[in-house]
Amino acid sequence: MLHFDSDYMETAHPSILEKFISINFEKNSSYGFDVYSDSAAEKIRKECNCKNALVKFLVGGTQTNKVAIDALIDSYEAVIAASSGHIAAHEAGAIEACGHKVITLEGEHGKLKAETLERYMETFLADETCEHMAQPAVVYISYPTEYGTVYSKDELTCLKNACEKYSLKLYIDGARLGYGLACEGCDVCLSFLASVADAFYIGGTKVGAMIGEALVIPEPSEVKKLFTQMKRHGAVLAKGWIAGVQFDTLFTDGLYFEIAKNAVDTAMYMRDGLKRLSYEFYLDSPTNQQFIIVSDEKLDYIKDKVGYSFWEKTKDGNNVIRLVTSWATEKSQVDELLNLLK
Amino acid sequence: MLHFDSDYMETAHPSILEKFISINFEKNSSYGFDVYSDSAAEKIRKECNCKNALVKFLVGGTQTNKVAIDALIDSYEAVIAASSGHIAAHEAGAIEACGHKVITLEGEHGKLKAETLERYMETFLADETCEHMAQPAVVYISYPTEYGTVYSKDELTCLKNACEKYSLKLYIDGARLGYGLACEGCDVCLSFLASVADAFYIGGTKVGAMIGEALVIPEPSEVKKLFTQMKRHGAVLAKGWIAGVQFDTLFTDGLYFEIAKNAVDTAMYMRDGLKRLSYEFYLDSPTNQQFIIVSDEKLDYIKDKVGYSFWEKTKDGNNVIRLVTSWATEKSQVDELLNLLK
Amino acid sequence: MLHFDSDYMETAHPSILEKFISINFEKNSSYGFDVYSDSAAEKIRKECNCKNALVKFLVGGTQTNKVAIDALIDSYEAVIAASSGHIAAHEAGAIEACGHKVITLEGEHGKLKAETLERYMETFLADETCEHMAQPAVVYISYPTEYGTVYSKDELTCLKNACEKYSLKLYIDGARLGYGLACEGCDVCLSFLASVADAFYIGGTKVGAMIGEALVIPEPSEVKKLFTQMKRHGAVLAKGWIAGVQFDTLFTDGLYFEIAKNAVDTAMYMRDGLKRLSYEFYLDSPTNQQFIIVSDEKLDYIKDKVGYSFWEKTKDGNNVIRLVTSWATEKSQVDELLNLLK
Amino acid sequence: MLHFDSDYMETAHPSILEKFISINFEKNSSYGFDVYSDSAAEKIRKECNCKNALVKFLVGGTQTNKVAIDALIDSYEAVIAASSGHIAAHEAGAIEACGHKVITLEGEHGKLKAETLERYMETFLADETCEHMAQPAVVYISYPTEYGTVYSKDELTCLKNACEKYSLKLYIDGARLGYGLACEGCDVCLSFLASVADAFYIGGTKVGAMIGEALVIPEPSEVKKLFTQMKRHGAVLAKGWIAGVQFDTLFTDGLYFEIAKNAVDTAMYMRDGLKRLSYEFYLDSPTNQQFIIVSDEKLDYIKDKVGYSFWEKTKDGNNVIRLVTSWATEKSQVDELLNLLK
Repeated sequence: MLHFDSDYMETAHPSILEKFISINFEKNSSYGFDVYSDSAAEKIRKECNCKNALVKFLVGGTQTNKVAIDALIDSYEAVIAASSGHIAAHEAGAIEACGHKVITLEGEHGKLKAETLERYMETFLADETCEHMAQPAVVYISYPTEYGTVYSKDELTCLKNACEKYSLKLYIDGARLGYGLACEGCDVCLSFLASVADAFYIGGTKVGAMIGEALVIPEPSEVKKLFTQMKRHGAVLAKGWIAGVQFDTLFTDGLYFEIAKNAVDTAMYMRDGLKRLSYEFYLDSPTNQQFIIVSDEKLDYIKDKVGYSFWEKTKDGNNVIRLVTSWATEKSQVDELLNLLK
Repeated sequence: MLHFDSDYMETAHPSILEKFISINFEKNSSYGFDVYSDSAAEKIRKECNCKNALVKFLVGGTQTNKVAIDALIDSYEAVIAASSGHIAAHEAGAIEACGHKVITLEGEHGKLKAETLERYMETFLADETCEHMAQPAVVYISYPTEYGTVYSKDELTCLKNACEKYSLKLYIDGARLGYGLACEGCDVCLSFLASVADAFYIGGTKVGAMIGEALVIPEPSEVKKLFTQMKRHGAVLAKGWIAGVQFDTLFTDGLYFEIAKNAVDTAMYMRDGLKRLSYEFYLDSPTNQQFIIVSDEKLDYIKDKVGYSFWEKTKDGNNVIRLVTSWATEKSQVDELLNLLK
Repeated sequence: MLHFDSDYMETAHPSILEKFISINFEKNSSYGFDVYSDSAAEKIRKECNCKNALVKFLVGGTQTNKVAIDALIDSYEAVIAASSGHIAAHEAGAIEACGHKVITLEGEHGKLKAETLERYMETFLADETCEHMAQPAVVYISYPTEYGTVYSKDELTCLKNACEKYSLKLYIDGARLGYGLACEGCDVCLSFLASVADAFYIGGTKVGAMIGEALVIPEPSEVKKLFTQMKRHGAVLAKGWIAGVQFDTLFTDGLYFEIAKNAVDTAMYMRDGLKRLSYEFYLDSPTNQQFIIVSDEKLDYIKDKVGYSFWEKTKDGNNVIRLVTSWATEKSQVDELLNLLK
Repeated sequence: MLHFDSDYMETAHPSILEKFISINFEKNSSYGFDVYSDSAAEKIRKECNCKNALVKFLVGGTQTNKVAIDALIDSYEAVIAASSGHIAAHEAGAIEACGHKVITLEGEHGKLKAETLERYMETFLADETCEHMAQPAVVYISYPTEYGTVYSKDELTCLKNACEKYSLKLYIDGARLGYGLACEGCDVCLSFLASVADAFYIGGTKVGAMIGEALVIPEPSEVKKLFTQMKRHGAVLAKGWIAGVQFDTLFTDGLYFEIAKNAVDTAMYMRDGLKRLSYEFYLDSPTNQQFIIVSDEKLDYIKDKVGYSFWEKTKDGNNVIRLVTSWATEKSQVDELLNLLK
């Protein structure tokens, strides 16, 4: 069976496992205060051009979103997200579990527009009863979005300006960050993201690591006692180096970016092939998630041969499905897929 | 200055204050275990035709919504509401503060339709990732709604059936319950509400009491250790009889219904007058909240003479305002208002 | 039956009810932005010698403790209290419901000693793992304590110094504040309390009001968006003046202090009488709560004649009971009690 | 430098890393629904003699404690623990972050005695105000305890009986479970623990795994929608097999028990050696954590040569330190240590 279900199906990039084997019996300090975590953090700081950034390694996107957002805002404050945002749609109320309301605004193919945000804030502030409402304090976006789309430098700058205008912080969920940075036409880099975001994370789980996400707080004074807050959320790894080693490996010699590029390259190869086969696309995504429309018959034909994610029914009864490549996808696998979809 | 700002501007129905004076130096048991609370609860049980109902007296709508919803559902469960619902819009994240997500669906003039609920639940259940989402467990509606509209018996029956179909509980916010029950064409009564709701409250603050809301749980086994849960939310009155006496008075000889009727009568009198003056109505409300559209000039003219609530701008630049009557409104006050609005 | 169960058995001081009658049909602004709340706040500010203090009126001690403590500290921070402190013992986990740990230290007759606090903080800070623990951020004391005892000016100064030394805030629960201030030998006043506390409340429910507590934040910048936080906790009164009128009345011409003195006077009269009758006291209380030791026989004799609170069994099988006077207690009632206890 | 700081300093048992390498490019289903997690769960069910047990793999003790306790009890309910219990002392308020009070009782070398529990519950239930208190609902114990001590079968049976008497659930934190089961004189096994506990976890992080804890709910109906609850706590691994593979390996051919035995054997070897050197022990521990008393001079001598945990000062100014062995400790390392401590 072919698998284009998701980008977290393989265990880890081989160099990570090799590294673990080579250090297996070394004795490391606990709770993230080890040499590998230090080295990984330093490399990330350099890449982000942020000398003082606080870098912490956590396990999983929901956990990282929860810890970061809860650390950025006060208990009575709320987070604004596109209604398709992962925290709004697929995290089982993890943000609300911390007491925060998630205010959802309409997005455009997963992207929250600066205008939408500004319109909401103007209405909120003009409302005489706004003191009776949860107070918006941070804006959540994902890069790339849940639809594989990415924000341009201009769009991020506009969002950042809107945030500043209304004293909102900006948080970026980078579960698939590598795949966004690697896409054609992408005009931002880590150091730009670090210059607009109050906090963001560099996803490892979906980009070559076994597990792990690197939370970056460019300006450490933004959050207080982060270690204790992580512990309170059950998000401190006793063996912190398990994540540290992985990011240290991924951020050595540009490995993270190199393997991310493979996912985008194979996705574009797949996209071109699907276009040649005249498939209609649900939206235009430049990253490793592609959304196409297939008939019931076709779906029935491939369902035991290909792993994919069912997205939704179209109005005329066809099916939107998602096909995802990863750092480990090979062109030959795409060829097989295209052959099946002929 | 005339006041049609809200229905909670006067202190209390005189018979309540008289009652307090007459019992002032009596010594009462604390925490709601007093003779007045017992008597009030018994009268409410009778009116609801619910022998075993649990009846507790709290202070304020947000508090009551929070306590009731938190008691009805588990920590990871969510509440569904119309997006105009008070818990979704104007309670400062009080439900999220208990860890629950508020899932908002589009309402119709404040009312949540059974079809809307069913459509949402079908989509939810069909979604393969629904285990990754906050789990809907209770439906919140307000009666009358924030727009003064009311559900018919048929509509409530359909909602109840939909709730049962999807194992959802039904909770009714009755902040203005009296005004809903008193309106023309209303075909439901307390005992019907008690038969469809898993919990609801009878609003006192807005219907003649100084303070106080009566939370009714028709089937006591629906909630566990409610007293302790109230205490945990800071919602137990040490002097429970302060609320008990008021509901005991309001539910003696139908006082609650009688004074509610005055609000509706004066509202209908106002509505007729406004129609004669050719005012356009934002929506059709049969209760004590009326929404009309006025020009900037008119608004400017009345703004120092009449208290009202600004609602929103219309597309063509006019203003929706809300005018509210109460149990204490006099026809002569409405006449004065109509005169000003000529 | 005689009642010495508690100090919240009567409805309200008569002048409060008279005031309500006189203003009954006045139309007031909602949510605490009315003339009575303003006037009451201003009087309290004057009495506290705190021009800028934020004063808010809430309903009930648990609610006020919860709102104040949650507003003073961050989500991951903890509150330190004597193990007999009301928030630790009798508030059903209301503080934990906001996510905060209550760290309990041994008290002395209800009082938390500065030395105890310092010892705890030294141990905490010396612990290499203190980042793994809930972070102490505010100290809770009650004045008078749950045992009727009071802190002297010196003791409060030492506590305050200890708090400052360790960057802890100080919060004072004044559910029975009037009774503490009225006791013989009390060397503190409201303005002194306002100078040491970061927040405290002046109890109304137990000192002549129907309901109501006045939360005072001497330095408003200590808390952010308090109104919204109150709303989120279900602690905003729609009819704010219901509490405002009461505090305005209590703080006119020293009524609060005058009626508090009656409770202490009758308590001292009772204490002297009990001493003459050779009753042993569980501890020495200068306020309106007296704790004596009675045999099973005596208890059996009075149990249908006197309301009291059972406290605990002594080691030799006798009983500690609490007898409480209030602003409304008359000497003749104490005489009757003493007669029964002969 | 020698390391006896903790039992989580090495990466993983080599057979785990080998397994990862052998399956690296296999494509696995996500969120724990993979063949390795299934196989591991099945092996654990067998070992626990619990056909229907729910087995879930999480990352880290605090996270597992939090998820399990929050799933076992209602929002207003509390957990009882020895004051030295990890959830009470070193989890940064993680349980309170879920809204639950942790009620602490005095332990004996880390163990909570059935008598202590019964005495507390009798006092609680006899208290007329117990409805005003957080409601105890689950008992937390650790096996072995934070002091390395273990409960006997008899002690656990007594605790279980006490729990049943008062309708309390029993939860066992097994962060170091293997080391408890492997100690001399241990008369319990996994299937016995499964028969007394409502939930418990088998620690992997400290017993040979890279990361991972196996939460076991012997009777699945004890908890509802556990997956969603885990997700809400940020405790679902996208790559669930990362934990699954490890437990599958550890529970193949008794590897878990075999490597746990090494830690205990080397600890006993160390203990004997230390006794021969006349070291005083702080308490008697049969497991891999040993607590000895050393002078300042000795501590100063070893501090750059040996990793240990400082525990506390003794009254006469000496030092309690903890020395810990692990699955990876070699006898030669103990010999070196003993040589240094001569």
